[in-house]
Amino acid sequence: MNKNLHAFGLGIGTIDRSGKWLEVFFPCPILDPSEEIRRVFSGFENQQIISKARLGSLTEELRELNLHGEADLAERVATSSKPVVAVCLSENSPPRSVPEAYLKLHLLSHRLVRPHGTDLSGLFGILRNVVWTNDGALDPEELDEHLFKARIANKTLTVYSVDKFPQMCDYVVPSGVRIANSARVRLGAYLGEGTTIMHEGFVNFNAGTEGTGMIEGRISAGVTVGSGSDLGGSCSTMGTLSGGGEEVISVGKQCLIGANAGTGIPLGDRCTIEAGLYVTAGTRVTLIDSNGESDETVKAKSLSYVSDLLFRRNSVTGAVECLINRNEIELNTELHDN
Amino acid sequence: MNKNLHAFGLGIGTIDRSGKWLEVFFPCPILDPSEEIRRVFSGFENQQIISKARLGSLTEELRELNLHGEADLAERVATSSKPVVAVCLSENSPPRSVPEAYLKLHLLSHRLVRPHGTDLSGLFGILRNVVWTNDGALDPEELDEHLFKARIANKTLTVYSVDKFPQMCDYVVPSGVRIANSARVRLGAYLGEGTTIMHEGFVNFNAGTEGTGMIEGRISAGVTVGSGSDLGGSCSTMGTLSGGGEEVISVGKQCLIGANAGTGIPLGDRCTIEAGLYVTAGTRVTLIDSNGESDETVKAKSLSYVSDLLFRRNSVTGAVECLINRNEIELNTELHDN
Amino acid sequence: MNKNLHAFGLGIGTIDRSGKWLEVFFPCPILDPSEEIRRVFSGFENQQIISKARLGSLTEELRELNLHGEADLAERVATSSKPVVAVCLSENSPPRSVPEAYLKLHLLSHRLVRPHGTDLSGLFGILRNVVWTNDGALDPEELDEHLFKARIANKTLTVYSVDKFPQMCDYVVPSGVRIANSARVRLGAYLGEGTTIMHEGFVNFNAGTEGTGMIEGRISAGVTVGSGSDLGGSCSTMGTLSGGGEEVISVGKQCLIGANAGTGIPLGDRCTIEAGLYVTAGTRVTLIDSNGESDETVKAKSLSYVSDLLFRRNSVTGAVECLINRNEIELNTELHDN
Repeated sequence: MNKNLHAFGLGIGTIDRSGKWLEVFFPCPILDPSEEIRRVFSGFENQQIISKARLGSLTEELRELNLHGEADLAERVATSSKPVVAVCLSENSPPRSVPEAYLKLHLLSHRLVRPHGTDLSGLFGILRNVVWTNDGALDPEELDEHLFKARIANKTLTVYSVDKFPQMCDYVVPSGVRIANSARVRLGAYLGEGTTIMHEGFVNFNAGTEGTGMIEGRISAGVTVGSGSDLGGSCSTMGTLSGGGEEVISVGKQCLIGANAGTGIPLGDRCTIEAGLYVTAGTRVTLIDSNGESDETVKAKSLSYVSDLLFRRNSVTGAVECLINRNEIELNTELHDN
Repeated sequence: MNKNLHAFGLGIGTIDRSGKWLEVFFPCPILDPSEEIRRVFSGFENQQIISKARLGSLTEELRELNLHGEADLAERVATSSKPVVAVCLSENSPPRSVPEAYLKLHLLSHRLVRPHGTDLSGLFGILRNVVWTNDGALDPEELDEHLFKARIANKTLTVYSVDKFPQMCDYVVPSGVRIANSARVRLGAYLGEGTTIMHEGFVNFNAGTEGTGMIEGRISAGVTVGSGSDLGGSCSTMGTLSGGGEEVISVGKQCLIGANAGTGIPLGDRCTIEAGLYVTAGTRVTLIDSNGESDETVKAKSLSYVSDLLFRRNSVTGAVECLINRNEIELNTELHDN
Repeated sequence: MNKNLHAFGLGIGTIDRSGKWLEVFFPCPILDPSEEIRRVFSGFENQQIISKARLGSLTEELRELNLHGEADLAERVATSSKPVVAVCLSENSPPRSVPEAYLKLHLLSHRLVRPHGTDLSGLFGILRNVVWTNDGALDPEELDEHLFKARIANKTLTVYSVDKFPQMCDYVVPSGVRIANSARVRLGAYLGEGTTIMHEGFVNFNAGTEGTGMIEGRISAGVTVGSGSDLGGSCSTMGTLSGGGEEVISVGKQCLIGANAGTGIPLGDRCTIEAGLYVTAGTRVTLIDSNGESDETVKAKSLSYVSDLLFRRNSVTGAVECLINRNEIELNTELHDN
């Protein structure tokens, strides 16, 4: 993780009745803004609402510095009927406010930083639980009143979710992706060009895909999937947030995790897990060599990051086996090193 | 189930072209209303639309009885441009109408009664199949016309579902919960304070959680989950509606059902089912004692409600095993009692 | 597949900034239109936008031919503020344009042709990736601008999906179905009368159900399910699009695929797959005869289309077994024929 990450964003947000930020949308977040930009926005650490007047003078200041892109942005957000905020991060430290947290999540979904590339420590404590509706973001405390009012007025207030994270697609859809159900990709997901998230697919924040790939399974928080890998329907990758232990799971390139299968270990490249088989770190796996003979039994954990493996459950003996497709020697070497 | 349940609600609903109720929203359902309230609303058994005039006189009547909360409610719903209905249940009998059914579902989701606490016999026969859209509830018979009209007018009519149950969050969001995808929690679900329903979680009506817990699996109709229990991604609890037999499944406190796992038996407290393992009532399970030795094989059904169990599939022999974590003797006693 | 399929539709669609079709809604698609209709619409092969004037003269022409239903349709779409298009297919050939592709998908969802009944070759190359929002269909290239604009105007632009297929229910809801989450049924799905798609159910295009059935699992592209069959929660049917090989999977009548189970072979009638068991074509299955004795081990593929089978994993030995419920002889005959 780069300690010197700098980032900047001018955002439009929603506040609750007491004036506290619920969420912020950053149309054009910037990684590594120039020193000039950082200097202009150095006085905005408190992330208070910026007045129209201040936005006007900021626009002028930016124009004078020939920062026309930023000036245009400032000019445009000044026309917003919603509150405007500026966030300028000068180092890669944990988020201290809702605007900072949202900027960091935007950086991920805009592909400006990769998963684990920005410090998200304490994120859950910073983010507000928000009711996401067809009428925007609402404070849960205020929902009852909104629901009642809408009914009386014969309006439909639809609640999409009550969550600390919004769905990514309402903030940004990166180029070259398909997402069959937006409700299943959180802001903060990183989706590489050529990724398809099918209806059963799911991607948490600070997690995602490197490139092409058909994702019909669940990419848990922190998990990354290499390019060319397919995750079958309802397959599972164990997250560190929910019982998966300390080790961060990853899936290498050109892997195939079958439907209803799962992994509790990081996989190397070109690995396959048979449909319906869940490999956890503690699964004792019988290794099968290229002659079809079993040589030894190891814990799946010891096969972490090894490439060219095929995991299956022998349907006659019930034993979980691991076939070494290729590169057998390489594998054994790695095994002995562990 | 308490036979003497009383409940009252003043609701705002939707009717179809022929004047029949499609759904009703009760902003403030009341359990155990006072006898005075019951007397005031005793003449509304037919659940016909209440006129503005009648609401006006009701408001006065309630004020005279010093029932100011109810008077305020009556006054407020009188301003609705949608039809108003009153439901006063005087015993815990099966629902006889759409308004009665909706009041009962509200009682559950408002945490006024627990799952199985109100008689829902014949519910499916009473509830209407409704098209739930961004333009409110529609009669399926009328949908074609609505879709055509919307297109001609360049409006977007989005159909969220075609179902007998609406999503809970459009009616009530109880305090202290997160629900990552509202489409997956039906009205009539009971979610205890501190419950998180993740994207893959699902909660049917007359089912739910006692308190804290991370739900990424499916809570079928009638199933209850104790506090402190986690349901892993896509895990399954068998419902009596869909092939799960007569026995109502429940999950005790501090249990962990792994991702892609499932249970067809009621679990005691502190039980674990390994990721990917589905334990059905008929699964023959090899018991493993605290010395790691197997003593006997029993049907999983006989382990119903027993606490401190760990279910796993031995990945070398393929056998489903049950480890007795603690309280071994207690377990054996219970086993022999069965 | 009938080579001589004829179909006709007058649709209302959405175009992008450059005038290209994104999607088309056909309120009343017609299979086997009369020769008169075909003659009237023979000049519309290019599927360009039809002007109001032209729609007026078409209406007159249709009235003169006593085609009053079609004349009414033409008259009505002429009032649309969105572009109108006519598609007249004269043979069952691959779709060549977005309007043709959409008409074919409509034919399936309107139950005018069954899955595999219309040639969909090259469909993915024809369909546009579209952003489906509460404000209609948008070109992904234009989304950033729309999101920014909406925020400035304090409007909520919700993105439902970014996909080549819209959800079926925004185009047609066939009679007698329940669909608990519209996001999980693509346009082009074929749902027979009496089908319930629960929250966990999913139906891809060119796939579906014959009749009654409770679908809580995934019906992949090309897969068909016979009447009276239940698919348990999260169960999987392998599709040819995603690693399922060449063979098109089907499920016969009155089958039960348990929760979290799956099939990689076509099933006959009255087959059961136990909850949690994934049967792939290569699974070696031990056959169990009516005396409970195992006679032989075969690849599951050889049991394709055989009726009255019960698949389970022996929870003591770990072996995948297949019980022959009835009609044992019939089974063996079929087996030997393979």
